[in-house]
Amino acid sequence: MISTVSSFALVQDGLAAVERTLADTAQPDHPLLGPMLSMVLPGSGKRLRPALALLTGRLGTYDADRLLQMATGAELLHGASLVHDDVVDESDLRRGAQTLFTRVGNALAVLVGDYLFAQSAKRCVATGDVRVIDLFAQTLASMCQGQIEEASRGSSPHLTLTREGYYQTIWGKTASLFVLACEGSAILAGLPEPTIQAMSRYGDRLGLAFQVVDDILDFIGDERELGKPVGGDVKQGTITLPVICLREMVPDAEFRAAFDSEDRAAVVELVRSSGAVERAQAEADRLLDEAREALMLAPSGPARDALEALTHYVVERRV
Amino acid sequence: MISTVSSFALVQDGLAAVERTLADTAQPDHPLLGPMLSMVLPGSGKRLRPALALLTGRLGTYDADRLLQMATGAELLHGASLVHDDVVDESDLRRGAQTLFTRVGNALAVLVGDYLFAQSAKRCVATGDVRVIDLFAQTLASMCQGQIEEASRGSSPHLTLTREGYYQTIWGKTASLFVLACEGSAILAGLPEPTIQAMSRYGDRLGLAFQVVDDILDFIGDERELGKPVGGDVKQGTITLPVICLREMVPDAEFRAAFDSEDRAAVVELVRSSGAVERAQAEADRLLDEAREALMLAPSGPARDALEALTHYVVERRV
Repeated sequence: MISTVSSFALVQDGLAAVERTLADTAQPDHPLLGPMLSMVLPGSGKRLRPALALLTGRLGTYDADRLLQMATGAELLHGASLVHDDVVDESDLRRGAQTLFTRVGNALAVLVGDYLFAQSAKRCVATGDVRVIDLFAQTLASMCQGQIEEASRGSSPHLTLTREGYYQTIWGKTASLFVLACEGSAILAGLPEPTIQAMSRYGDRLGLAFQVVDDILDFIGDERELGKPVGGDVKQGTITLPVICLREMVPDAEFRAAFDSEDRAAVVELVRSSGAVERAQAEADRLLDEAREALMLAPSGPARDALEALTHYVVERRV
Repeated sequence: MISTVSSFALVQDGLAAVERTLADTAQPDHPLLGPMLSMVLPGSGKRLRPALALLTGRLGTYDADRLLQMATGAELLHGASLVHDDVVDESDLRRGAQTLFTRVGNALAVLVGDYLFAQSAKRCVATGDVRVIDLFAQTLASMCQGQIEEASRGSSPHLTLTREGYYQTIWGKTASLFVLACEGSAILAGLPEPTIQAMSRYGDRLGLAFQVVDDILDFIGDERELGKPVGGDVKQGTITLPVICLREMVPDAEFRAAFDSEDRAAVVELVRSSGAVERAQAEADRLLDEAREALMLAPSGPARDALEALTHYVVERRV
């Protein structure tokens, strides 16, 4: 089994090209856009979605420029959604740094997010493949719908949100973009239809697991490593899988009391001590098993090994 | 010369199909999206952009469904940008009704705007024509850039904004979408390249004139007909062509005094009495002459006559 470091290393030239394209998109010479885009585009994040796109492309025969457009388009779509996320949540911090929302205010953050959506659309259109572009438009709609669902829960979502509702929401807001990166690149790489479908499923399962782990880290992560306070979701009223597991595992009175106290630390502590984290983790592990199972339909070789290694990265990451 | 009513009548079947498609996009059965989308999508507005798309299609040979997707996509893009406009300007009213921003708040209005961008992308992608889809992505970027420019003026834009800067901004925020409707449909209708370019120019000039007239109406319109207060742009600190004309026409001291007083009514009155409105109107008329000139390169017939009539509608409209 290869390590995660090697997964990224296998496509390091491609990732460097993505980084250059993002730096270009940041319009360094534009007096107005340059400073704002430079706050969100260059040099931040693991570039997991571009890595997925580039590695999937290597499973088949690809045109380097089209694949670069796909990988960059997926990252730009991710960046756009983060900018609007921070507007919606009125977040001050992301990865330990001030958000664009905090630095330039609501109005400009909305518009810069829109601009990034436009740039991601341009990149996906530049693949020249109508099926890929259609998938992009569907993904954009799914992402918005997921965000809208999360922002519109009733007054007591900790009592009402079902596991099915949770998975539907995180499919839209997170997994759909992993599907775009994997399925889109599989199409561009000319893989046979069953392999395209397998890579779509791999992205789907990996994306769901990624978000479940993200939601677990909100309870057990290290504040300094996360770059934001622990228990932020509970504070926002955002209910995630660990809370749904908690509801199944502790007596109803105890569950309600923890939330009614409005003491965020009490809820975090209960989630940590109840075994809810382990139950949620087991669900992530099952999803990753399914991701690996889907991957077995892809042609074997270094790219497939690297994609498999990324399933381990998703559970082992700390931020 | 045919009347504006006839312009819309010529494509009334197509416009009815657009209306049905918009009603469909509003997801009436979705418990969450339905109520919000129904506040912005059905039955409002003149559907000028769909009419432009449908009439341009009639200049050539078109596939009815693809043209419908184009016409609907342009209207959805318009709707998305209005929703985010109201977020950016924190507007209470649009056409006399409460805005979505006021009714559901900042977060959901941002996300519903995003959702409408996604739906407009889906419609444009459904044309199946990569050149049209590419034009769509460019348009989206231009629109965002225009909005960002308008939202980021310096501290005294009434002293610094040039005519060139003004036209660049309104090209992005308004005219680019008219270009999409006209040029996109010209491509779909299989018109020869010089005619596609002529229709692009027609949309460009018509769109600029439309925005100039909009900016004039903000000073001289009837509050009840506009459905919003007169002088709203001045209040927002948004500088438009009538103010640029005013600056050229009255002594500098008088101009500065009107703005320094922070009395919106004084600025409105000065714009009305100075001849600035007439000068701005003359610029709109010149743009419309250029739109008609471009149109002369299109095949003659009822569709071209109807497009010419729309150039008169643009100046004669009251809201």
